[in-house]
Amino acid sequence: MGHEFDRGIEVTRTGPGAYDAQLDPGWVVGGGVNGGYLLAVLGSAVRRELAGKPDPVTFAVNYVSPARPGPARITTRVVREGRGTATVTAELSQGEEVRLTGLATYGDLAGLPDDVRTTAEEPHLPPVEECLSTALAPAGFRAVAPLLERSDLRLDPACAGWVLGEPSGTGMIQAWFRFADGREPDPLALLFAVDALPPVSFDLGLNGWAPTIELTAHVRAIPVPGWLRLRHATRNVAGGLFEEDCEVWDAAGRLVAQSRQLAKLPR
Amino acid sequence: MGHEFDRGIEVTRTGPGAYDAQLDPGWVVGGGVNGGYLLAVLGSAVRRELAGKPDPVTFAVNYVSPARPGPARITTRVVREGRGTATVTAELSQGEEVRLTGLATYGDLAGLPDDVRTTAEEPHLPPVEECLSTALAPAGFRAVAPLLERSDLRLDPACAGWVLGEPSGTGMIQAWFRFADGREPDPLALLFAVDALPPVSFDLGLNGWAPTIELTAHVRAIPVPGWLRLRHATRNVAGGLFEEDCEVWDAAGRLVAQSRQLAKLPR
Repeated sequence: MGHEFDRGIEVTRTGPGAYDAQLDPGWVVGGGVNGGYLLAVLGSAVRRELAGKPDPVTFAVNYVSPARPGPARITTRVVREGRGTATVTAELSQGEEVRLTGLATYGDLAGLPDDVRTTAEEPHLPPVEECLSTALAPAGFRAVAPLLERSDLRLDPACAGWVLGEPSGTGMIQAWFRFADGREPDPLALLFAVDALPPVSFDLGLNGWAPTIELTAHVRAIPVPGWLRLRHATRNVAGGLFEEDCEVWDAAGRLVAQSRQLAKLPR
Repeated sequence: MGHEFDRGIEVTRTGPGAYDAQLDPGWVVGGGVNGGYLLAVLGSAVRRELAGKPDPVTFAVNYVSPARPGPARITTRVVREGRGTATVTAELSQGEEVRLTGLATYGDLAGLPDDVRTTAEEPHLPPVEECLSTALAPAGFRAVAPLLERSDLRLDPACAGWVLGEPSGTGMIQAWFRFADGREPDPLALLFAVDALPPVSFDLGLNGWAPTIELTAHVRAIPVPGWLRLRHATRNVAGGLFEEDCEVWDAAGRLVAQSRQLAKLPR
């Protein structure tokens, strides 16, 4: 029943501000639970905690230790609830170990005024059918990345040379994205989408896991149904760390989310 | 004794994880205590709480209610301390009111490897003496912005048309910055620097206070002594909110901090 993503981020209230979650093995990539999925689980608990403020507007999170599939506990605390927005902290633990800890502003994005004045440029991507589907990834890779079965991800060939061992060195990856089972995007899904692409370090020729230290997402609008376009870019690799900026554009050509993370370069 | 900024961010330990601070009226601008100064106060408490991890690497903060000059309490909690980094939450209150709540990763920036590979472009600014000093601001404005006396801020005339009522509409402000009393920059000062410029909404012709909802700063390197160059830009004004990206470059031409905030447009 329902969609994989919704089942994956479901939480059960166990007490004041307290929730249980089951981290689904389907959202694992390369041995770790995907950071965007974890953020959406946290986001799902915060949403349950508040009435009339369904949407993450900002969500900052620190990844403290690697999560594993299985049971997890979430504690939330409403720092302040005003008329339009609420500030909430949320932390996810497994056993004695904190996995991630976050800080969010929630509100009602549908209630915001309609003005849009943007100089950000919409990513230009070839049509979906001319992009590289991750369904074509080698079976060996897909076996350790069940996440790929849940995402329909189509990489822009212009910045996917790394797939064939020829990274551009630019530090940019673009793709079309939707859930494989047709679930339409919403603000919680955007928390996942901002971390749905492979690390942009792949395009720098640096393969391997790039653990996120911190990620902040701003959800700027409710996406319309349809494909999302994702653009990940880095501009500053220094001291073994790199920032990764992500933009998410919806099918109506609106910039619906922006995020930045600081991650460690693969060794 | 010492410098204004160091006195302004001084904290006194009162118990486990607990600190007292005195929010200095000298860091007020337009009736509110400056957000970058408040972040640096929080950063100063976190620094005291940790041994061998003196530097903010990431700091995300939500501004929950407007702070006033005077006494404040800070509570910190070390979520996890590893070999290289520690994750810490920190919250500043006055009376019963939380003013700001944050989430930080601290470490030792001096211990990071030396690699730098950046495609970010250094801001080009006219020489300091050809830029507009905020010391020339009208006396009436300076009276409500004592912060200006503590900063030596020189605006790039190319994006300071708003000073004369002719905003460019581009959404960009650049400036040279140093502390007026000659205090050299360090990582804590960078937490202040990322919010030291007027809101970039001024360059869009939208004057007035633009309250920050959320700000995340990444400190990427220890700055060398000398002038800093700041660049604030926005690309997406929508739903009454705008993001403001800040870059801080040091006198050696290194990108030493990046930040993004989400703020409310002035009414």
